[in-house]
Amino acid sequence: MRKYSAILGNLGNTCDRFCSRYKDNPSSIEMLKQAGKIDGISGIELVGTWDIRPDNVKKMKSALNDLNFECVSIIPDLFSEAIWRFGSISAKDPSVRQEAMGYLRTMCGIAEEMDCRIVNLWPGQDGFDYLFQGNYLDERNWLVENVAQLAGEFPYLKFALEYKPKEPRTHSYMARMADTLLVCLQTGMDNVGVTIDTGHAFMAGENVSESIVLARQAGDKLFHMHFNDNYKSWDDDMIAGSVHSLEYIEMLYWLDKCAYDGWFSMDQYPYREDATGAIAESINWLKAFDNKMCSSREDIAQTINDGDAVKTSALMRRILFGK
Amino acid sequence: MRKYSAILGNLGNTCDRFCSRYKDNPSSIEMLKQAGKIDGISGIELVGTWDIRPDNVKKMKSALNDLNFECVSIIPDLFSEAIWRFGSISAKDPSVRQEAMGYLRTMCGIAEEMDCRIVNLWPGQDGFDYLFQGNYLDERNWLVENVAQLAGEFPYLKFALEYKPKEPRTHSYMARMADTLLVCLQTGMDNVGVTIDTGHAFMAGENVSESIVLARQAGDKLFHMHFNDNYKSWDDDMIAGSVHSLEYIEMLYWLDKCAYDGWFSMDQYPYREDATGAIAESINWLKAFDNKMCSSREDIAQTINDGDAVKTSALMRRILFGK
Amino acid sequence: MRKYSAILGNLGNTCDRFCSRYKDNPSSIEMLKQAGKIDGISGIELVGTWDIRPDNVKKMKSALNDLNFECVSIIPDLFSEAIWRFGSISAKDPSVRQEAMGYLRTMCGIAEEMDCRIVNLWPGQDGFDYLFQGNYLDERNWLVENVAQLAGEFPYLKFALEYKPKEPRTHSYMARMADTLLVCLQTGMDNVGVTIDTGHAFMAGENVSESIVLARQAGDKLFHMHFNDNYKSWDDDMIAGSVHSLEYIEMLYWLDKCAYDGWFSMDQYPYREDATGAIAESINWLKAFDNKMCSSREDIAQTINDGDAVKTSALMRRILFGK
Amino acid sequence: MRKYSAILGNLGNTCDRFCSRYKDNPSSIEMLKQAGKIDGISGIELVGTWDIRPDNVKKMKSALNDLNFECVSIIPDLFSEAIWRFGSISAKDPSVRQEAMGYLRTMCGIAEEMDCRIVNLWPGQDGFDYLFQGNYLDERNWLVENVAQLAGEFPYLKFALEYKPKEPRTHSYMARMADTLLVCLQTGMDNVGVTIDTGHAFMAGENVSESIVLARQAGDKLFHMHFNDNYKSWDDDMIAGSVHSLEYIEMLYWLDKCAYDGWFSMDQYPYREDATGAIAESINWLKAFDNKMCSSREDIAQTINDGDAVKTSALMRRILFGK
Repeated sequence: MRKYSAILGNLGNTCDRFCSRYKDNPSSIEMLKQAGKIDGISGIELVGTWDIRPDNVKKMKSALNDLNFECVSIIPDLFSEAIWRFGSISAKDPSVRQEAMGYLRTMCGIAEEMDCRIVNLWPGQDGFDYLFQGNYLDERNWLVENVAQLAGEFPYLKFALEYKPKEPRTHSYMARMADTLLVCLQTGMDNVGVTIDTGHAFMAGENVSESIVLARQAGDKLFHMHFNDNYKSWDDDMIAGSVHSLEYIEMLYWLDKCAYDGWFSMDQYPYREDATGAIAESINWLKAFDNKMCSSREDIAQTINDGDAVKTSALMRRILFGK
Repeated sequence: MRKYSAILGNLGNTCDRFCSRYKDNPSSIEMLKQAGKIDGISGIELVGTWDIRPDNVKKMKSALNDLNFECVSIIPDLFSEAIWRFGSISAKDPSVRQEAMGYLRTMCGIAEEMDCRIVNLWPGQDGFDYLFQGNYLDERNWLVENVAQLAGEFPYLKFALEYKPKEPRTHSYMARMADTLLVCLQTGMDNVGVTIDTGHAFMAGENVSESIVLARQAGDKLFHMHFNDNYKSWDDDMIAGSVHSLEYIEMLYWLDKCAYDGWFSMDQYPYREDATGAIAESINWLKAFDNKMCSSREDIAQTINDGDAVKTSALMRRILFGK
Repeated sequence: MRKYSAILGNLGNTCDRFCSRYKDNPSSIEMLKQAGKIDGISGIELVGTWDIRPDNVKKMKSALNDLNFECVSIIPDLFSEAIWRFGSISAKDPSVRQEAMGYLRTMCGIAEEMDCRIVNLWPGQDGFDYLFQGNYLDERNWLVENVAQLAGEFPYLKFALEYKPKEPRTHSYMARMADTLLVCLQTGMDNVGVTIDTGHAFMAGENVSESIVLARQAGDKLFHMHFNDNYKSWDDDMIAGSVHSLEYIEMLYWLDKCAYDGWFSMDQYPYREDATGAIAESINWLKAFDNKMCSSREDIAQTINDGDAVKTSALMRRILFGK
Repeated sequence: MRKYSAILGNLGNTCDRFCSRYKDNPSSIEMLKQAGKIDGISGIELVGTWDIRPDNVKKMKSALNDLNFECVSIIPDLFSEAIWRFGSISAKDPSVRQEAMGYLRTMCGIAEEMDCRIVNLWPGQDGFDYLFQGNYLDERNWLVENVAQLAGEFPYLKFALEYKPKEPRTHSYMARMADTLLVCLQTGMDNVGVTIDTGHAFMAGENVSESIVLARQAGDKLFHMHFNDNYKSWDDDMIAGSVHSLEYIEMLYWLDKCAYDGWFSMDQYPYREDATGAIAESINWLKAFDNKMCSSREDIAQTINDGDAVKTSALMRRILFGK
């Protein structure tokens, strides 16, 4: 039984660097109510500071309860404040790293208070822009040490590291599945794993199914899934299924094969669209793909074992069009 | 009524730069017989020199007649001989350009003899590899002049220029739809137009539907279509429909909208696959896409006019999955 | 004698979609003063509405005069307001197109008042995000008609169309040099040409030198140049010269060869950097490249005519390292 | 003291999939003599079967000795024979995997006979082309098991795994540095590491300096380096330094910082060029970069520690142009 969820902020104004206001930005509580209207969603991810802070934890907890929403993850905001502009937990400046750790501890405490199991870490500012700017050796080490430290302090939580090749920096330290698995292994902690954002993975040139297998082989390290779509060159954050089709179907097959039992969470930037409509569309697509995959599971397994591309092509057409 | 065809050589051994022999290479006549077994094909494209030369024109013409195949195009070989390694009709060396024109005239004569209307020009070696190597100004001018010259000499033929961003050179002079349309316009000849190879267009980052419209707006310049598929970063020459789905459906809509009435020709490199099986698969996909498009035509037109992405997403799912 | 300039807004806060405030945003007048401190700049480009409006034209004109700045171009803001979210001069909604034309007429009037010759048109919202969303045929036609209309109404001005493959839309209608030249030709107006933004061109996979030649061959259509740098996959808007080296040197050679005599304008997003420092760096790089190119001009011409890659490689090393 | 070498076959005919014969293909012995004329080369890499087989080991060993060449690596041919078309050590067919292991054992024996320490493994056919074709789980496991098996049997040899994102398959199993490090770690063998081919790394979107650091942090896993250049979208196999400049300089800095003491080996496809000239050019570039790097080492270290992009830009210009 799939569990669908969404990131709360996707229901508000999502801006780009040219236009800061495509639409009005409702309050977190109003967005929660909107989310409540999306068919099939039973969980919500909250961005730290934006949606949840020490001062509103109780209020948010009760608002989620009222709507029967589980708090799927807390996403600490390591990306929207100028203080993190040169990185957070891997910043050159030790006082910035310390500040980041303090903030993360607060957010981990909030996660526990919310009965939330996952802290989704996307340190989007940790990386570099120019050649000869990053001290790759020291900064990657600080990243690993700080994640390990946090995971040790909060053993009840699962830390899901979200990778992305670039943006807002021109190069992120956690860029792809495999390098993020290396970070996980280097921490030596069982409660450190990976979030796949399908769009980030497409942008990284990954076959997402293979990335799922990589995480499995590194020791069941796939902790969380974010869904959206794009044209492979950039994180367009579009409706999942609106660009790729067969990739999602293959993904669902391998998620089951690799025993993934986590959330299917929607993470989009519906800049110009009705947000609830756009998020509902992603879920509609995923359900349609899932139907097709489930009824073709044996057929898929057989065809993969054959490995004959002509048969594979026929299989894919059978899945999509039934003949 | 769609007319499907294939490039003859696709039925033989297709090699890459590492492995020269994935399978045996049958004779042109044997390949023709194989093509005769592919359901739905009524035309064949012949590569100059490889498949057709002054010495075997009559034999090939009669072989095509026997199988009820129309000769869809002649593709002069401006790419596989070392003499063209620095370009053919745009080469720096005037004697090479002259040699290329001589060869092309022979091939144009053969086209007329075969009752073939299209000469598909892919000058794959015309371009450059290194910075400071190409004389862009002179070489592009020679390209235009020579195409214009040929089109003037053979007014009965249509010259379809096939663009591709790179390979075998790191940069081709005819790289994308729009720059090739500029070449067409600069020749000033009505019988010079463009071939879209869907894989080349994907690799060029084009939305192929938009490329079709560009050709329409430049004066009905879409003369020919080659079909295959890839992952957008390279000319993988795979089964059409095996990677992209919705793109082909949108393409078929705009081909009709722009009154394209030419051939749908398969152009693949089925390195490791049974060639007839792989080509048949492409046609199966295109027919499946066409069914879906035709029965949704009004729906598509309406949705495009709305331009609302949430509705667009729902339309696409309706097209693929019927609901 | 090169003329260097900068876009005023680059001196202020440049935000991305995650962080809206990397630094404080000074007033236009303060930014002008900052620009005055950058060695070598003698012109300024102003973004419509942000920097210049009917109510402050006189004030800005006098401020520019005080600093001996020429007003290089007006860049109407067709990208930062929600009204343009589905396009401006090519929007499906006729009232939006009308609004865009009204705004552009105001901006053209201001350009004349500022003794500014160039209106730099970047209709960044004109394009589409999803398949089956854009009416490529009608919308491209509206784009051409409206540009032609404007160029007819303001014959004294030069309209420089700035292309960019994507962002903020996933697909822009004016995406690359060649398709933008087709727009120019379709307007039939002599005062419609193109702006090359080097970063947009890199992102489009162009060899910029070849793009310069394309504009030359289409009838001296290169009206303006914006300089910045990136890693080819995205519009990173970095210091020009910080990523590419030889490309800029080749570019300078072909700009001269094609008789470009316009501005060299800096257009960057120095998110985390001191803005005047970052802009000054771009100019320092361009001057260093120019020195190298000018002293190697004969050598370059000779090597291009040879076309021998081994010699070309040696030339490039000679240019960079003197041996 | 850098040690430069070259892959022998680069001196012969290098073909692409369109033109099989750009130039004549000399014998291995003749190519060796050519290599002897390239200034600065002291080692040679030999491709299995092509250059070296059980029947010619003694002859090749003596030929190398005569020219004072060290045998840097053996590169078993797992890519040019049809038998490997669906993979070698990860093929679905167990008899193919067995055949591959037999062949590799022979090649490892030859390596020992040649006093060669490195077996450079590039299993270019191990991967997949189509979705639903690869059994990612089993096939990756076979890859790891077979490499581990071989490394156990030949403890004196170092197995350097060469990654590449694609070609000849559309997807390789060892695609990037980080996933190849995961393979290394999964074998549990100290004598399994990685070869960086700079062109493969550029094509994979990597900052090569960071890849060097990743290998260092995974336990000194960088065993070998292949040098060539490209435009980032494909393995163009061009003269190293002819496209990128600053990247190589940064690379040399981090190679030293990470205590790399292996070979600098040239691996190019000079299709249309004089091969010895093209290989010599790569070495000339690397030496020029090295001079610049060595004399700026302190400056580089200081600037990296600052991390200020404006200073970084100035540093890069100082390195290239001395001011």
